[in-house]
Amino acid sequence: MDLEKYVAKVPGFPKEGIVFLDVTPIFRNGEAYNYAITKLADYAKSKGANVVVGPEARGFMTGCPVATKLNIGFAPIRKPGKLPREVVTEDYDLEYGKNTLCLHKDAIKPGDKVVIIDDLLATGGTVRAGINLVERLGGEVVGIAFLIELTDLNGKDLLEGYDVYSLMEFKEKE
Amino acid sequence: MDLEKYVAKVPGFPKEGIVFLDVTPIFRNGEAYNYAITKLADYAKSKGANVVVGPEARGFMTGCPVATKLNIGFAPIRKPGKLPREVVTEDYDLEYGKNTLCLHKDAIKPGDKVVIIDDLLATGGTVRAGINLVERLGGEVVGIAFLIELTDLNGKDLLEGYDVYSLMEFKEKE
Repeated sequence: MDLEKYVAKVPGFPKEGIVFLDVTPIFRNGEAYNYAITKLADYAKSKGANVVVGPEARGFMTGCPVATKLNIGFAPIRKPGKLPREVVTEDYDLEYGKNTLCLHKDAIKPGDKVVIIDDLLATGGTVRAGINLVERLGGEVVGIAFLIELTDLNGKDLLEGYDVYSLMEFKEKE
Repeated sequence: MDLEKYVAKVPGFPKEGIVFLDVTPIFRNGEAYNYAITKLADYAKSKGANVVVGPEARGFMTGCPVATKLNIGFAPIRKPGKLPREVVTEDYDLEYGKNTLCLHKDAIKPGDKVVIIDDLLATGGTVRAGINLVERLGGEVVGIAFLIELTDLNGKDLLEGYDVYSLMEFKEKE
């Protein structure tokens, strides 16, 4: 299936000079959505994952169906103030300022084999913070999967030593 | 399955006097998650839905796996500034202030049969706004489904005339 035709390129979002890659048309099409989820689930299964972790909010749209397809659990990574019980937190740098992400302390048990799933790999900061959260709880990140990798932003550098899989590759500057 | 044992009651979140019902333990358990999604998918199928709509962010964790299980599409309802293409918007009242929700204009086509899915029915404001968004685009809301209905908040009053289904009932004051 030509999944790329379900990626909408939106120039100027969220700000001038950026071409945003909108994956919601993939989710909106039953056949395309299922195709993408099946590929990601096959990957997660091949890595022996027993739990999927995904950052809000497109990581939920991408990761949750993978978890239910494999009959395994899903743990959300969220911004501060969203998860109601005890969390571990991780700060990371953005282009301007900082961001903080949280994961419930009981979401990962030592020895859990975790696949982290998000829609898009750009600079890798979000997923790198996710790796740190999982590892601080004793989980093992056995793989990281995306719908899209922006190859010219070198996000893989931040994820060195981890297995990274993506369904599509784009360049930001095109 | 006793799904209720996977609902964590968190007193004092997000503020004093409220007992928050945390459904993330359902998602974290593969068996419980699959059980819940299968029930919701059976419901959506029985209503003839061809698309699932869910509000961010727990509506994604609940609605997206229902869509992929039925091989139909999913359309996200999001806060302003999150959906990159042309949207319809709907304001609604909160206890203090207002909230605004958005849906991509091309997410619903006239005649689409829509099931709206969220984790929890409280006052019903979010889902009522979702109904309005879907109907303004010509979609038909054939059903509304939740993991949990808080029966003492009378959210169903706002959803009168629509078919409402929930897997569990709780009272806020207990």
